[in-house]
Amino acid sequence: MQLVHTIAEMRVVRRELPTDKSIGFVPTMGYLHEGHLSLVKASNDNCDITIVSIYVNPSQFGPNEDLSSYPRDLERDLHLLSQYRVDYVFFPTNEQIYPPNYKTWVEVEGLSGILCGASRPGHFRGVATIVLKLVNIVKPDHIFMGSKDFQQVKVLQTMLRDLNLESRIVACPIVREADGLAMSSRNSYLDPAQRQRALCLSQAIKLVQQATASGERDATKLQQIAEEHCSQYGQVDYIQIVDSENLQPLKQVDSSSRIIMAVFIDRVRLIDNAALGE
Amino acid sequence: MQLVHTIAEMRVVRRELPTDKSIGFVPTMGYLHEGHLSLVKASNDNCDITIVSIYVNPSQFGPNEDLSSYPRDLERDLHLLSQYRVDYVFFPTNEQIYPPNYKTWVEVEGLSGILCGASRPGHFRGVATIVLKLVNIVKPDHIFMGSKDFQQVKVLQTMLRDLNLESRIVACPIVREADGLAMSSRNSYLDPAQRQRALCLSQAIKLVQQATASGERDATKLQQIAEEHCSQYGQVDYIQIVDSENLQPLKQVDSSSRIIMAVFIDRVRLIDNAALGE
Repeated sequence: MQLVHTIAEMRVVRRELPTDKSIGFVPTMGYLHEGHLSLVKASNDNCDITIVSIYVNPSQFGPNEDLSSYPRDLERDLHLLSQYRVDYVFFPTNEQIYPPNYKTWVEVEGLSGILCGASRPGHFRGVATIVLKLVNIVKPDHIFMGSKDFQQVKVLQTMLRDLNLESRIVACPIVREADGLAMSSRNSYLDPAQRQRALCLSQAIKLVQQATASGERDATKLQQIAEEHCSQYGQVDYIQIVDSENLQPLKQVDSSSRIIMAVFIDRVRLIDNAALGE
Repeated sequence: MQLVHTIAEMRVVRRELPTDKSIGFVPTMGYLHEGHLSLVKASNDNCDITIVSIYVNPSQFGPNEDLSSYPRDLERDLHLLSQYRVDYVFFPTNEQIYPPNYKTWVEVEGLSGILCGASRPGHFRGVATIVLKLVNIVKPDHIFMGSKDFQQVKVLQTMLRDLNLESRIVACPIVREADGLAMSSRNSYLDPAQRQRALCLSQAIKLVQQATASGERDATKLQQIAEEHCSQYGQVDYIQIVDSENLQPLKQVDSSSRIIMAVFIDRVRLIDNAALGE
């Protein structure tokens, strides 16, 4: 496991990798959990070489969001990664990624302003831009990402396709705690009582999946079931049943439709999603 | 000279090029003139392999601009290119470049809304996006561009740097007709009388260069010289003396400052620029 601190060093590393080896890339913001590690494992299983990046990207945080408090523990991250076959860990600095006079931003229209993008203006612009930059530096064949960030995966798949990049995203299943909570670095913000209330997201998904399995097809009614449940434990940011491809809201649903949600547990904003037929 | 009609075909071609050969790329909108051909020659002189693209990019034209009337003559273009060492000519279709559900755009802030960008909203967004797409397909070492489009060169250099691409732009000198008119595909719109009036741009540049050489340092006075001259022959869109690096307007100038202008000769919008010390 080689630590790579600069873009220039990463370029040298990349240039010297054999062209007949497949490169798997796992971009992260650090504070790794089992979800991230499942992506590393997927890369190990599918690619010859695995590169992990750890970079808390400031441009995807809004001015009132948790950039400064976002959890960081590089030593712990490296220890966790050392249990896998990670060839390179890339952690560039803000000064390298956004030097003075940085001016260029990527916008994926239509997908970036809805759902999480409506609550977090500029978030997906920041995500699309950093991932494009990292992809241009790392030049991976496959990019492994978690489906918890379902909208993020769709935004980035669209960006890669539209900009004619050949790197492809492999969307991996959500990893959950035993009681159903989707793993997230932000779960570390939760105190024990909040941690208990945070179960409302996965519980609401289950309730809606059950109602769908029982034949309910009306999206408004299904969303109400989820909203009524979550409102008992937190403040709903959005809960929507959408087309799994274009993320547009649906009126009538089927088992391939997706429920997608963001709920505040006090000040902690959590997201979750699932296909209704899962 | 191999004609390449599709992105898929271009990818196959590119993948099979030897990795030890340098690739020069000349992106054009066709209707080639000596200016374009000087770029092909520069690529021939500096690179092992030369790829020219011909694509009239709709996304860089405004709704009231000349997309439909923009001159096209593929047969003539291919004949002109055949006089050089052009390995591949890539001419994709709109359907391939902007398929249904195309959503992704690149914005270079600060440089895109001034000068030509102020008169042509969205123009540089379209330019940045198409060049990024072509660069991702062609993967050149060097991109040869004309300095007539000085702002375009600055926007694209900034984009390539910011997005961590390794392709580098080589900005080549403006090629002029014997009487000073900068070569442009849009010159074909001019009737003989308009063609004569179009000389005002290069004449104004000369006047300002002479005044600078005589010691005038006040940008406002120098701009007035150019405006008074051009206003006799056409309608000034903008004439500005700017810093050659960041394109910001200057009050006091030196020989490395740049005069940059757009003037309408009736409905034909022409641009030109030069360093004051040229």
